[in-house]
Amino acid sequence: MTEPVNPIPDGYHTITPSLTVRDCAEALEFYKDALGAVERMRAPGPEGSVWHAEIQIGDSIVMLNDEYPEQGAHGPQALGGSPVGLWLYVEDADAAFARAVEAGAEVTMPPADMFWGDRMGSVVDPYGHKWTFASKVEDVGPEEMKKRQQEAMGQAEGT
Amino acid sequence: MTEPVNPIPDGYHTITPSLTVRDCAEALEFYKDALGAVERMRAPGPEGSVWHAEIQIGDSIVMLNDEYPEQGAHGPQALGGSPVGLWLYVEDADAAFARAVEAGAEVTMPPADMFWGDRMGSVVDPYGHKWTFASKVEDVGPEEMKKRQQEAMGQAEGT
Repeated sequence: MTEPVNPIPDGYHTITPSLTVRDCAEALEFYKDALGAVERMRAPGPEGSVWHAEIQIGDSIVMLNDEYPEQGAHGPQALGGSPVGLWLYVEDADAAFARAVEAGAEVTMPPADMFWGDRMGSVVDPYGHKWTFASKVEDVGPEEMKKRQQEAMGQAEGT
Repeated sequence: MTEPVNPIPDGYHTITPSLTVRDCAEALEFYKDALGAVERMRAPGPEGSVWHAEIQIGDSIVMLNDEYPEQGAHGPQALGGSPVGLWLYVEDADAAFARAVEAGAEVTMPPADMFWGDRMGSVVDPYGHKWTFASKVEDVGPEEMKKRQQEAMGQAEGT
């Protein structure tokens, strides 16, 4: 008799982002430095590539693999950008941002207080993936939020 | 006296993926149909666009926004692909896959049993984002996993 298998393995939330990264082995070291990531596993691919790796950041898992263009796996450098960012809610957005920049991430937005109550800063890493570090610093009620949104949109439209 | 604010709001894990999508309002309806997503919030942007929305899928939140090319926010259609996939561990990968395809997602890999013990199928949605549905169906021990990986890599290299 075999044990029944849990269809959702321990430690995974419903959604896990899976990043294609050029030079995945190098990137794994970068993510350890820049994000405090802990390597959970690494499965080798052809010619020293990383076919599948998993890192843990806080309570979240991120999957990574090298580029395999023949299988349609292209990193942000090949595509000229990414349509997906990774948003991290952390205890101290400034500290997390500073650590990533110190490790070599490029600043796209220095930390600042946002109207919706987050303190938030963003970077792009050397492989082209986008990371935002945020900490809630103010609870904004629904009425106040609506007012602030309208003000922000008015500014965005130049009215 | 104001209440202390929890820097990590309730319901968020450390990492939340944030997707740029062309026709975000339309895409939100698609994700409800295709993925059983529940809309948590939606903040309007200029000219009827969606500046920020959040959906819940299982225990995970996903953020979405329209394309704002002038701010560097491009969707997969503009970039010609995505370097990030969204992996969903679900109770029944076949059912989740079928639901997405029924709603209009394109099959990239029909569900099959994988050597590492998952049953897994993949789609790309009409906006170019990639989703994989997986359920663990077999617990594979470390020794057996190593053997199977080597076999799989041998096949990949044609040896």
